[in-house]
Amino acid sequence: MVLLLHLNNVDEEQWAKSLGKKLGQYLIVRQGDNYNPSEIKYIFVWKPDEGAFDGLDNLKAILCLGAGVDALLEHRSLPKDVPIVRFVDDELAQCMSDYVVANVTMHHRLFCRYQSDKQNKTWSQFFPPPANERSVGIMGLGELGKDAITKLKPLGFKLLGFSRSKKQIAGVTTFAGEQEFDDFLRQSEILVNLLPLTNETKHILNYDNFKKLKRSKNFTPVIINAARGGHQIESDIIKALKDKTLGAASLDVFEIEPLPKSSELWQLENCFITPHIAAISNPQTGVNYFSKIIIDHEQGKPLSNLVDRKRGY
Amino acid sequence: MVLLLHLNNVDEEQWAKSLGKKLGQYLIVRQGDNYNPSEIKYIFVWKPDEGAFDGLDNLKAILCLGAGVDALLEHRSLPKDVPIVRFVDDELAQCMSDYVVANVTMHHRLFCRYQSDKQNKTWSQFFPPPANERSVGIMGLGELGKDAITKLKPLGFKLLGFSRSKKQIAGVTTFAGEQEFDDFLRQSEILVNLLPLTNETKHILNYDNFKKLKRSKNFTPVIINAARGGHQIESDIIKALKDKTLGAASLDVFEIEPLPKSSELWQLENCFITPHIAAISNPQTGVNYFSKIIIDHEQGKPLSNLVDRKRGY
Repeated sequence: MVLLLHLNNVDEEQWAKSLGKKLGQYLIVRQGDNYNPSEIKYIFVWKPDEGAFDGLDNLKAILCLGAGVDALLEHRSLPKDVPIVRFVDDELAQCMSDYVVANVTMHHRLFCRYQSDKQNKTWSQFFPPPANERSVGIMGLGELGKDAITKLKPLGFKLLGFSRSKKQIAGVTTFAGEQEFDDFLRQSEILVNLLPLTNETKHILNYDNFKKLKRSKNFTPVIINAARGGHQIESDIIKALKDKTLGAASLDVFEIEPLPKSSELWQLENCFITPHIAAISNPQTGVNYFSKIIIDHEQGKPLSNLVDRKRGY
Repeated sequence: MVLLLHLNNVDEEQWAKSLGKKLGQYLIVRQGDNYNPSEIKYIFVWKPDEGAFDGLDNLKAILCLGAGVDALLEHRSLPKDVPIVRFVDDELAQCMSDYVVANVTMHHRLFCRYQSDKQNKTWSQFFPPPANERSVGIMGLGELGKDAITKLKPLGFKLLGFSRSKKQIAGVTTFAGEQEFDDFLRQSEILVNLLPLTNETKHILNYDNFKKLKRSKNFTPVIINAARGGHQIESDIIKALKDKTLGAASLDVFEIEPLPKSSELWQLENCFITPHIAAISNPQTGVNYFSKIIIDHEQGKPLSNLVDRKRGY
């Protein structure tokens, strides 16, 4: 068995060393090494080059570093019929939920209002309602959405969930598919996006949808995007933040990254920008995860966390 | 039985109406009404005047609107030996925990760093560690401290608790009394104050104590005060925020309220100011709570949530 590492924008050499310790019985080769492509059984990829899969005619699996596989699925020469394993990482879910909880609670507690009052040295006592009077709509009920729900539920928020196919989650009002999407939006005050990026979810964060969110005298809806820049239309977000269709936005991802200095988002007081740092995979977690997948599969066990190419995740 | 309302700075008339609906069998009088002081069995107070208790020689209990009774206990003519009932309000605890969670998670997620980067249009990817690598020290393990712990625990933080007398709380490392206080501080990265204000706790948020907090390369300690302005020395906070002994502070209370416009706290980027709005009692909750206390006591049941005057809460 030969494993090929093809990892760009990360420390491939370090991954080779760490995986080597776990997979001592197997040969590991890297980009640029002298190897026979037809002997490669597994390729472990991140941001693969155009020729990454050339000559790999005997692949058993493609392992992808990252929970989102949208970019990989658009790779021009991605081999058909080879199973793709995505990274399901508990620490990644924990960090993503940390980000979601921090931003949901910050907006629930009217951070923008008090920051503006502080700038003006204004003492104006308005009491935010308890969390059980605030509704949070989670888009995407996979590993990340479910973990966020586990963390938000004990805080008391009213929780709504949206996914492609109907899911039952205790204590969460769930909606599924296009026909239930507007009902979901109309009941959501804080909208959290954790969807995979697919043709159906591209540009889902747009002005028309912002208009549908639940608004009241004391709360203007808020969006939080921790998934992909492709989910959002940034010109729509700018318009909505300016005309108060949205009260605030927390964005960890952008159409172009790094966010260009020319973007108006940098200047909007009610836009909270983080540089795609909501969550990252811990290398050691990844080493343990992918080495176990390979060892198990070599011992005849089925692959887990497989990507469904038709759904796109 | 006659109940006297002596409520300043709140809508006493509304309280009289609402309590009247619940206590129809009893007589309720207000400040300025014509009543015989020796017939008053209960007085319900908020910010009582100097003469509030004059002639009330047959009091069975003093009911205090508010969880903190520090100001009441300093009242010059507070009758000795009359039991004082403080307000224990589930909604107040919920709102206080909402405030605590929002501020703890905001600082854990390095809000100041990213706001500063945003101002400079800087894209600098630093990944905050998962919550389980961050320690939060809660000072005060009464109703409010315990509720905050209930909310912070599922988020994964390492939790430490400090109180006057030792308490056992599952999943929390607890410390008690002066002799264990420094150990508590040395392990706390985010310090949350929910203590009652007493002679022992006055000015506990001071520079010497800030110096003892746990600091590391990637995290400078943070304080969050949602209790009383008397707990803090504001000149020490200003000094600590400027010389980076503290990375940030969230303050809901102040030595003088409203915070004077001359205070330097308004201008510090890493100081988050809210105008004493972390939590307030919901009037309907208060009506239900205090009418039940009176009805139960008139039926011979013991008073609950009594203040220990020696401890000061």
